[in-house]
Amino acid sequence: MSTGPAPVPTVPLPELVEGALREFFDSKAPIVETVGGGYPEAVAALESFVLRGGKRIRPSFAWSGWIGAGGDPTGPHADAVLRACSALELVQAGALVHDDIIDASTTRRGFPTVHVDFAGLHRDNGWRGAPAEFGQAVAILLGDLALVWADDMVREAGLDSAAAMRLGPVWSAMRTEVLGGQYLDIAGEVTADESVEAAARVNRFKTAAYTIERPLHLGAVLAGADERLIDAYRRFGTDIGLAFQLRDDLLGVFGDPDVTGKPSGDDLRAGKRTVLYALALEAADADNPVAAATLRKAIGTDLNDDQVEQIRDVLVEVGAVDKVEQQITGLTERAFSTLESSGTTDEGAALLREAALAATRRAA
Amino acid sequence: MSTGPAPVPTVPLPELVEGALREFFDSKAPIVETVGGGYPEAVAALESFVLRGGKRIRPSFAWSGWIGAGGDPTGPHADAVLRACSALELVQAGALVHDDIIDASTTRRGFPTVHVDFAGLHRDNGWRGAPAEFGQAVAILLGDLALVWADDMVREAGLDSAAAMRLGPVWSAMRTEVLGGQYLDIAGEVTADESVEAAARVNRFKTAAYTIERPLHLGAVLAGADERLIDAYRRFGTDIGLAFQLRDDLLGVFGDPDVTGKPSGDDLRAGKRTVLYALALEAADADNPVAAATLRKAIGTDLNDDQVEQIRDVLVEVGAVDKVEQQITGLTERAFSTLESSGTTDEGAALLREAALAATRRAA
Repeated sequence: MSTGPAPVPTVPLPELVEGALREFFDSKAPIVETVGGGYPEAVAALESFVLRGGKRIRPSFAWSGWIGAGGDPTGPHADAVLRACSALELVQAGALVHDDIIDASTTRRGFPTVHVDFAGLHRDNGWRGAPAEFGQAVAILLGDLALVWADDMVREAGLDSAAAMRLGPVWSAMRTEVLGGQYLDIAGEVTADESVEAAARVNRFKTAAYTIERPLHLGAVLAGADERLIDAYRRFGTDIGLAFQLRDDLLGVFGDPDVTGKPSGDDLRAGKRTVLYALALEAADADNPVAAATLRKAIGTDLNDDQVEQIRDVLVEVGAVDKVEQQITGLTERAFSTLESSGTTDEGAALLREAALAATRRAA
Repeated sequence: MSTGPAPVPTVPLPELVEGALREFFDSKAPIVETVGGGYPEAVAALESFVLRGGKRIRPSFAWSGWIGAGGDPTGPHADAVLRACSALELVQAGALVHDDIIDASTTRRGFPTVHVDFAGLHRDNGWRGAPAEFGQAVAILLGDLALVWADDMVREAGLDSAAAMRLGPVWSAMRTEVLGGQYLDIAGEVTADESVEAAARVNRFKTAAYTIERPLHLGAVLAGADERLIDAYRRFGTDIGLAFQLRDDLLGVFGDPDVTGKPSGDDLRAGKRTVLYALALEAADADNPVAAATLRKAIGTDLNDDQVEQIRDVLVEVGAVDKVEQQITGLTERAFSTLESSGTTDEGAALLREAALAATRRAA
C-alpha cells in the first residue's frame, strides 16, 4: 500500500473553467436581484449561454501558456490565474452574442441565438411591439454585460497587484484587436475586397491574435515570463492562430455538416472573403477566367448544395486547397520549431503542442 | 501689488475632461493603426462622437465628490483622478451608441447617430448589402469599443493601487446597474407595465445610480472617504438622480424643442412608461375614466402636435405635473439636508449644490 502523497485529481480544464464561471455568476446574483424586475431571468439566459459553450480554447491556451512559463497548477496562485483565464470566455460570449446579431444567425451551439431566443419570448407572451426588435435589444445589452463582466472577473480574480499590472496592457490590446478584426471582417464583406492581404489581416486580428497569441501572452505575463519566452509565444501563437483559421476556412466549405454543426458553404453564402477564396481567385485570375467568373458569381449568394459542390471543385482545381493545406503545414512546423527553442517547460510544451494540433487538424 | 501665490488658472471641468479623453484616444492610435484597414477611420468617428458630447455630468459629479471628500485639485493625484472620472464619458458613449440602435434614433447631439452615419457611408460608396445592416454592425462594434476602452482608461489612469482597489467594486456595480436599468426600460415598454413602481425602478438604476449616485461614490472612494460620507453621498445622489429624471420626464412632454433639441412628446410616442405618465394614469384611474382612456390610447402611437397638446392638458388636469414638481422639490430638499450633515468640505458642498440645481432646474 502506497504511503506517498495522494495523487492530485486531474479535472479537465474545461470543467475547471466552467466551475470558475459558475462561481462568478453566483457572485453577481445579489446585485442582479437588487435591480430585479426580469433582469435576473435575462442574466440567467446569459449564464446558460456561457456555460453550455464550446471548447474553452482561449482559457486553455492561456492556462497552458502560464504552465509553460513556470506557473504551478498546484501552487497558491493557481485559483486566481484560472479565474483570469476563464474571463476570456466572457469576452468571447459578448463577441458571439453581438456577432450573431450582426450576421443574423439563428442558431449557435445547437440552440437559438440570444436575439432569436428573446424574440421568441416576446412572441410567446404577446408583448407590444416587434419581437425581433426586442430580441435584438436584449442581445445588445446582454453582450455588453458579458464584456463588462469579463473585466470584473479579471479585476476580482485575486491576482497580486504586480500580476494585474502586467496583465493590463495585454488584456487591453487583445480587446482592441478583436474589435478591429471584426470591423475589418464586415468592411471586407461590403467592400468586396478580393485581396489575399485583406483576408489575412482579418485572420491576424479577428482570430490569431485574439484566440491564441494574446491568450498565450496573458498566460506568460501572469507567470512573470521574460521577453524571450513572450516573444516566442507570440510568434508561435500567431502561426498556430493563422493555421487554425485556415482550417476553419476549409471546414466552412468542405466540412461535414454532421460534425461541424453548421451547413457547408455558409461562408460563401455570407460573402466572407476567406484566404481560401482569395487565393483561389488570385490563381484563377492568372490563367482560368471561367473559374474566376464562377467564384465571383457565387460569393454572397444563396447557393444550393449542387452549387456549393461546384465551388468545391473549382477551389480544388485552381490549387487553392493545396495551397491552404501547405500553409497550414508550414505555419505549424514553424510554430513547433519556435516552441522548441522558446525555453518553455516540458509540461508546457507538451500541452501547447497538443492544443496546437487539436486546433489545426480538427474536423469540427 | 500682491506677492501671494499666482491664482490657479481655472479651466472649466468639461474642457479638462475633453483634454483627458483626447489624450486617451491619442494613446490608442498606435494599436488602431496596426490593425489598419479602415479601423482608424471608424475609431475617429467614435472619437468625434465622444468629444462633441454633452454636459459631462457624470465626470462632474465624480470630480465634485472627490473634492468634497478632501481631494486636492492642485495635488499630485489630481491628474489620475481626472482621467478616471473622464472614463465615465466612455461608458456613456457606449451606452448611447447602443441605445440609439435600440431606440432606432436618427439624431443625437444634433448629428446623425453612429448607425445612421455608417449606413450613409455605405450608401455613398455603393457597397454591397444593406446600408442599415452595415450601419448597425459598425455601431455595435464601436459601442463595444467605447465600453472596453472605458475600462482601459480607468486601468491606465495612473491611480495608486489602493485607490484602484477601492474603485473596482463601485465601477463594477455601476455598470451592472445601468445595463439592468436599460433592460427594465425596454422590458417595461413591451410589457406595458403601468405601475409607478416599475417606472421608479427604471429611474433608480438607469438614471439615478448611474448618473449621480455611483459617480459620487466613485469620487468618494478615490479620495478614501469614510463610510459616513459615502453613505451621505449615496443618499444625496439617489435623491438628486431621481429628481433629475423627473425633470427629464417633464421636459420630454413640456420642454421647448428649440431648447431641448428634441421633439416634444417623443417619450410618449416611444411608449416610455415614465413616472409622470404612471402617476397620471394612477390618478385618472381613481376618478377620471375619460382621462385614463385618453392616456392609454395615446402611449406608443405616432402622436401629432395637437394630440401631444391634449395629453399635456390631461397630465396637468389629473394633477400629475404638480405631483412630479412636488417630488422634485421634496427630493432636492432632502438631498440638501443630507449634504448639510454629510461632513463634506465647503468647496465640495458648494459644487454639489450647484450641480444638483443645474440637474433638477434645467430647461434642456
